[in-house]
Amino acid sequence: MSKHKVDYRVYYEDTDAGGVVYYARYLHFAERGRTELLRDLGYENQKLHDEQGLVFVVRNVDIHFIKPARLDDMLSVHTSISEIKNSSFVMNQHIMRGDVFITDINVLLVCVEVKDFKPVRMPAVIKEAFLKYQ
Amino acid sequence: MSKHKVDYRVYYEDTDAGGVVYYARYLHFAERGRTELLRDLGYENQKLHDEQGLVFVVRNVDIHFIKPARLDDMLSVHTSISEIKNSSFVMNQHIMRGDVFITDINVLLVCVEVKDFKPVRMPAVIKEAFLKYQ
Amino acid sequence: MSKHKVDYRVYYEDTDAGGVVYYARYLHFAERGRTELLRDLGYENQKLHDEQGLVFVVRNVDIHFIKPARLDDMLSVHTSISEIKNSSFVMNQHIMRGDVFITDINVLLVCVEVKDFKPVRMPAVIKEAFLKYQ
Amino acid sequence: MSKHKVDYRVYYEDTDAGGVVYYARYLHFAERGRTELLRDLGYENQKLHDEQGLVFVVRNVDIHFIKPARLDDMLSVHTSISEIKNSSFVMNQHIMRGDVFITDINVLLVCVEVKDFKPVRMPAVIKEAFLKYQ
Repeated sequence: MSKHKVDYRVYYEDTDAGGVVYYARYLHFAERGRTELLRDLGYENQKLHDEQGLVFVVRNVDIHFIKPARLDDMLSVHTSISEIKNSSFVMNQHIMRGDVFITDINVLLVCVEVKDFKPVRMPAVIKEAFLKYQ
Repeated sequence: MSKHKVDYRVYYEDTDAGGVVYYARYLHFAERGRTELLRDLGYENQKLHDEQGLVFVVRNVDIHFIKPARLDDMLSVHTSISEIKNSSFVMNQHIMRGDVFITDINVLLVCVEVKDFKPVRMPAVIKEAFLKYQ
Repeated sequence: MSKHKVDYRVYYEDTDAGGVVYYARYLHFAERGRTELLRDLGYENQKLHDEQGLVFVVRNVDIHFIKPARLDDMLSVHTSISEIKNSSFVMNQHIMRGDVFITDINVLLVCVEVKDFKPVRMPAVIKEAFLKYQ
Repeated sequence: MSKHKVDYRVYYEDTDAGGVVYYARYLHFAERGRTELLRDLGYENQKLHDEQGLVFVVRNVDIHFIKPARLDDMLSVHTSISEIKNSSFVMNQHIMRGDVFITDINVLLVCVEVKDFKPVRMPAVIKEAFLKYQ
């Protein structure tokens, strides 16, 4: 099973007065992971927008909080792709500290046109590229 | 059906380069709504922590993104409580712009002790208070 | 001395693991205050952008941190305007908890055209409106 | 002149509806840079707090905004230390995209004791370590 992985440090900005990472911040880490996966495949957000008139929008997110992360932790964001359909796909993401599961996140993304935000068929070349991280 | 409602303006801090509210920010609005509901019932976060040694931690979040919100929008956060059990409950939250549904969020919260973060029975007085927004 | 004032609650999102408000968050509160002052004068960000092709950009910020703010605090943002010139002005902002000074912020803003971000003379009607909060 | 340098990507979370990096986010990048400089010198935030009972608090920040940064930009945070006194010092920070200056930030930090937040003399070993990035 091939997964994309990228590491991020936890800074003060990510934490809250409870002494742990603020719950919404995991969606920041997850979005960074998805962005780097797409960049690795050659699809930068801005390029996809400007050159193909496409953007991937988030339709659903499920988050399961398993253990808290804390200041100075180094977290890794593991991402794989599943349920690749004509105009949508799911990113399965695990945020981990070493081999400890911190947060599991599943994100349903839809490919839409910039001009009207209506769902469109994903280009075949993108669907093929996604197989690398399936 | 009695629901808690509180309004928040969308500022630049909430938006992203896509011209809409950044997806994780809805969890900020939702947390503000839950906090104000608890405050209305007499349970401020800090007081609950200091006086009762209890804190409500988020275990699961499901978010469904329906329509984008934009700069200067006035959003209302509607919150009700369901599935009240011994040590957990669900907050059902709708973020709306007027009568347009923007985002639906369901949050599973667990009552834990500050000292070890282990789940405990919620005090009966809190469970009773929750009935107001069931 | 006439000053604009608007209140905001401190939520978990605003705090960090140090138990206090994260230092950059005061710029969020300050920006909300400036936005509401402009709205009160009839100049919403989006309207100014769309109808007049103008935007106020921040050129310099000085922040002095006096006392820390904490979770559940109600903060008030007091804003007045000084040094009104042809294309720039200064917003003097005090963030307070009751009568305790938390943070002092001075912001130099420049009026630029949306099309090229070059500074332009502010419309006389805006300069006049600013006198209300001088 | 020896300077500390660390790179960060601009993600959606950092941008706003103006299409550029939100002004307060530069303080996040700057704080990450300061944190990594201290980590390189052997002074992790949490360790300094737990083992020495010390914390560096920000007293003043001056920010000069020169050019806007945008989505997908790779920014480098350059940090040097000046004005090292008994209990305070200044971090001079330049945020750059390649050789383009984006933002200049000067931060006055004070060394305080965790127990009462009163300024104390910095340990000589820390002052010496700072010479590396003076």
